[in-house]
Amino acid sequence: MEVIKYPPREKWQKLLERPTFESTSLDSKVREVIEDVKKRGDEAVKEYSLKFDKVELTGLIVSDDEIKAAIHEVSEELKNSIEIAINNIQKFHEAQKPAVIKVETSMGVECWQKPIPITKVGLYIPGGTAPLFSTILMLAIPAKIAGCKELVLCTPPGKNGKVNPAIVYVASRIGIDKIFKIGGIQAIASMAYGTESVPKVYKIFGPGNQYVTAAKQMVSRDAVAIDMPAGPSEVAVVADEQSNPVYVASDLLSQAEHGADSQVILFTDSESFIEKLNVELEKQLSILPKKEYATKSLENSKTFLLKDKTEIMQMVNAYAPEHLILSTKDADNLALQIVNAGSVFIGENTPESAGDYASGTNHTLPTHGWAKSYSGVNLDSFYKKVTFQKISKEGLKIIGPAIENMAEAEELIAHKRAVSLRLKD
Amino acid sequence: MEVIKYPPREKWQKLLERPTFESTSLDSKVREVIEDVKKRGDEAVKEYSLKFDKVELTGLIVSDDEIKAAIHEVSEELKNSIEIAINNIQKFHEAQKPAVIKVETSMGVECWQKPIPITKVGLYIPGGTAPLFSTILMLAIPAKIAGCKELVLCTPPGKNGKVNPAIVYVASRIGIDKIFKIGGIQAIASMAYGTESVPKVYKIFGPGNQYVTAAKQMVSRDAVAIDMPAGPSEVAVVADEQSNPVYVASDLLSQAEHGADSQVILFTDSESFIEKLNVELEKQLSILPKKEYATKSLENSKTFLLKDKTEIMQMVNAYAPEHLILSTKDADNLALQIVNAGSVFIGENTPESAGDYASGTNHTLPTHGWAKSYSGVNLDSFYKKVTFQKISKEGLKIIGPAIENMAEAEELIAHKRAVSLRLKD
Repeated sequence: MEVIKYPPREKWQKLLERPTFESTSLDSKVREVIEDVKKRGDEAVKEYSLKFDKVELTGLIVSDDEIKAAIHEVSEELKNSIEIAINNIQKFHEAQKPAVIKVETSMGVECWQKPIPITKVGLYIPGGTAPLFSTILMLAIPAKIAGCKELVLCTPPGKNGKVNPAIVYVASRIGIDKIFKIGGIQAIASMAYGTESVPKVYKIFGPGNQYVTAAKQMVSRDAVAIDMPAGPSEVAVVADEQSNPVYVASDLLSQAEHGADSQVILFTDSESFIEKLNVELEKQLSILPKKEYATKSLENSKTFLLKDKTEIMQMVNAYAPEHLILSTKDADNLALQIVNAGSVFIGENTPESAGDYASGTNHTLPTHGWAKSYSGVNLDSFYKKVTFQKISKEGLKIIGPAIENMAEAEELIAHKRAVSLRLKD
Repeated sequence: MEVIKYPPREKWQKLLERPTFESTSLDSKVREVIEDVKKRGDEAVKEYSLKFDKVELTGLIVSDDEIKAAIHEVSEELKNSIEIAINNIQKFHEAQKPAVIKVETSMGVECWQKPIPITKVGLYIPGGTAPLFSTILMLAIPAKIAGCKELVLCTPPGKNGKVNPAIVYVASRIGIDKIFKIGGIQAIASMAYGTESVPKVYKIFGPGNQYVTAAKQMVSRDAVAIDMPAGPSEVAVVADEQSNPVYVASDLLSQAEHGADSQVILFTDSESFIEKLNVELEKQLSILPKKEYATKSLENSKTFLLKDKTEIMQMVNAYAPEHLILSTKDADNLALQIVNAGSVFIGENTPESAGDYASGTNHTLPTHGWAKSYSGVNLDSFYKKVTFQKISKEGLKIIGPAIENMAEAEELIAHKRAVSLRLKD
């Protein structure tokens, strides 16, 4: 990790920039696939699955028999662990249930806001070597709590034409209505516009590579809402003289193993801690299965040595990390100073892995500095809030003249008359 | 208005389609302006203001003197009306204040969600013939309540280089920090990337024409969050045999006067009501200043004659109107059946104008069927919700093994070790 000592404030922004990634260069390719799926439906989906995923599909949906087989294949031990995670994720998200908010803003003018679940929701779960079934927990559990009526999941099959059993098991456990063996751009296009097999949904959730991200952003212009813009995962750790280098090294590596483009940042006010950490990093890295990924990721990563905790927290807020681990004794205090972060882990016994799997918080979080404006996925993400109002004759008498004046000043005379005609009666 | 009688269900989707509008065709032009503003800042902004808005600007910011003059120019009567609106909008949005939600999901595992205001927010207010100052109320009041630190507003100046006094007055009354005389694509680009004069913001709110909308969607890919995709305004009215045709006509016209592309839909189960309504529409239309707009809009609009209220509400939910007026005696009951709508107006004394100006609800709402997945602007739109967690040694002992199992099943061994190393101690 590159060490940057006491950078002057005017250089912060430049130093904190994420590696750039030009998504618009993929646009024409992505658009072509989307348009084709929109036009030709299932047939196009099958062709692209053969072309991109090298798999020839007859049916697109995971059958009941395949679900039964998957339930059989997952070990009882893993199932039990998943139950612990489900329990905690449910508790935390159930506590977020929004209520109807009702106010009489002026006599006879009743206004309320009612949360209504989004009827149809689509989840995308990426493929690759490891089956990321934990993301299904993070997306499907709140969707179920909110009361979304139809849950669809797309995930790319392996070369054998099958979906990983852990993914199928978790999807069926949480109650996903339909699981499709579709990956990449064609999955996003299918859920955005619908095909013969795949129902059109109103909002798409879930991570993915740059093609999936570009596809999500593209369909979000005209067809479907999306959870958030996605980017490579990242962690920032705050440590000081007294932090435990063994723990901090393990936390940095658990981010770095995600891939070469993962970003790992350390903020510290202790030069000697950096030395202790580097020894530990090398030790733990040498025995890691995903050593290559992690080594590459650490090469892109940075350690900032700063004057004090105040400066550290200012720089953390300027960076707006997806994950932030405060691995210090004064972590509670530092946590109060957070403005921009996705999810915060307080104290040395709180590794990021806890939030990734089983503590109860959501792991679908804003990357790339989006924590300045986006929340991570939470129960709210599965609702839209509809406002209602009911005004009595007397109520309209009271606020009517104000409406008439303002409408006239905006030169919207029909708006004014809709009130005047009623007041006249 | 075209009358469609008893359409079969399989034709609903097609019949309810909004007039299409191909935004991607503007993309290259919009992108060019954005890139140029990003590169050359204020200089480019001034050039485009001259080119598009035909106004030569020396300074971009509205000066203190201009603010003083504007405060002087707005009538006391309008000011008083605006105060009534402010009061109601404040009450309704203050009631939406989110709380910290804290749960001990498992012994020793504390998780919480904390709403934190978005630090820097940008508002766009379109120009045109009428000054839409009411939109400033709808965006700036909740931003202030949430506690956003910096509020920037861009709006195009008139040909005299000045911003409409009502806009300046309201912006200053609510406490906008900086008002800029910038419109269109260049305004969106300025707020997204920052220029010498305009601060970069984290989220942009506000309506605009197709260029502004395309620019917002484009910058939202890499630079800044946006409130929602915008489209032409629309209203759906539900009426029956007993509804008042005078009121319904006034409500339809108050939408139609917005512009030729505004959409107006009537759902009814009474053929005789349609006749009474058409007489009334013609009568009111003939004395409307914006008659031309309204006539064009009505030409694109539709009346659906349906079997009964059940079918009406099903079709309303399939349409997902921005504004929905239930102008019937059983409106309370119908309101319970709403799934997809932006804002709902219940009963014959509740015209849409009330919500547009002064009842307290927000008027920045999802159009074009986006009500299926988007909320209108509300207090939440100005926060991001950050999750925190703190786990004790004992807490980690309890959930640790589940994390280890799940991480191993996802082949993320560093994730597992971050827990194992701690459990070992």
